[in-house]
Amino acid sequence: MTEAAQAGPDFSKGEGLLPAIAQDAATGEVLMLAYMNQESYQETLKTRRAVYYSRSRQRLWRKGEESGNFQEVTSVYFDCDRDTILLKVNQVGQAACHTGRRSCFFHEVTDDGIQIVGDQIFDPEKVYGPR
Amino acid sequence: MTEAAQAGPDFSKGEGLLPAIAQDAATGEVLMLAYMNQESYQETLKTRRAVYYSRSRQRLWRKGEESGNFQEVTSVYFDCDRDTILLKVNQVGQAACHTGRRSCFFHEVTDDGIQIVGDQIFDPEKVYGPR
Repeated sequence: MTEAAQAGPDFSKGEGLLPAIAQDAATGEVLMLAYMNQESYQETLKTRRAVYYSRSRQRLWRKGEESGNFQEVTSVYFDCDRDTILLKVNQVGQAACHTGRRSCFFHEVTDDGIQIVGDQIFDPEKVYGPR
Repeated sequence: MTEAAQAGPDFSKGEGLLPAIAQDAATGEVLMLAYMNQESYQETLKTRRAVYYSRSRQRLWRKGEESGNFQEVTSVYFDCDRDTILLKVNQVGQAACHTGRRSCFFHEVTDDGIQIVGDQIFDPEKVYGPR
């Protein structure tokens, strides 16, 4: 355990990309999951703002760079296998999801099918422009 | 949005394995992250117990099959991109982690280095035998 406690997340796993969960520091709500490489992890620790690696754009993704909805990081954890990261964050602008909802997890699987459970807080077209 | 609301998680992504977050239904604590394939997802919905796919063992992993620490699933969500699953669970036996801790996220990254923040609830040797 001493050894594990001295080493951080193991970016030799997952081809250099580890899943990172963002959780609301105040309410515990899970807001989103994205991926981090070593560089984004280090910048997150340094700036205390969540920085991910965008797999689609293949570059660092400073969360909120386009929307203004930054995530202020209050604490950082990683798991027993050192291959998943957990951030507790204050979500600026109240919405983490690019669809304008607070959490990306707005589809609930119920006995009556899939329900949309999240309210839209902002209009994506107004934030990002027409797509 | 109507279309997205009719389709479930997209297992054509991630080479058939999607990350699944288990969150304590009562407290909101994030307990662990594991992976699901289509089969484990379907069995989870049917049995209301968390079933993952073990990447190391390359087979279905019925959480608790060895330790008895099952996860009773109270609700199931997936995200905007349909490539991450979130389970709210009741963790039987109080500990989700194979190290005997409640949460797998027991390493905290602080200014003073990495701290172990989770108490051990069970002795892994007693549950799994010597390794």
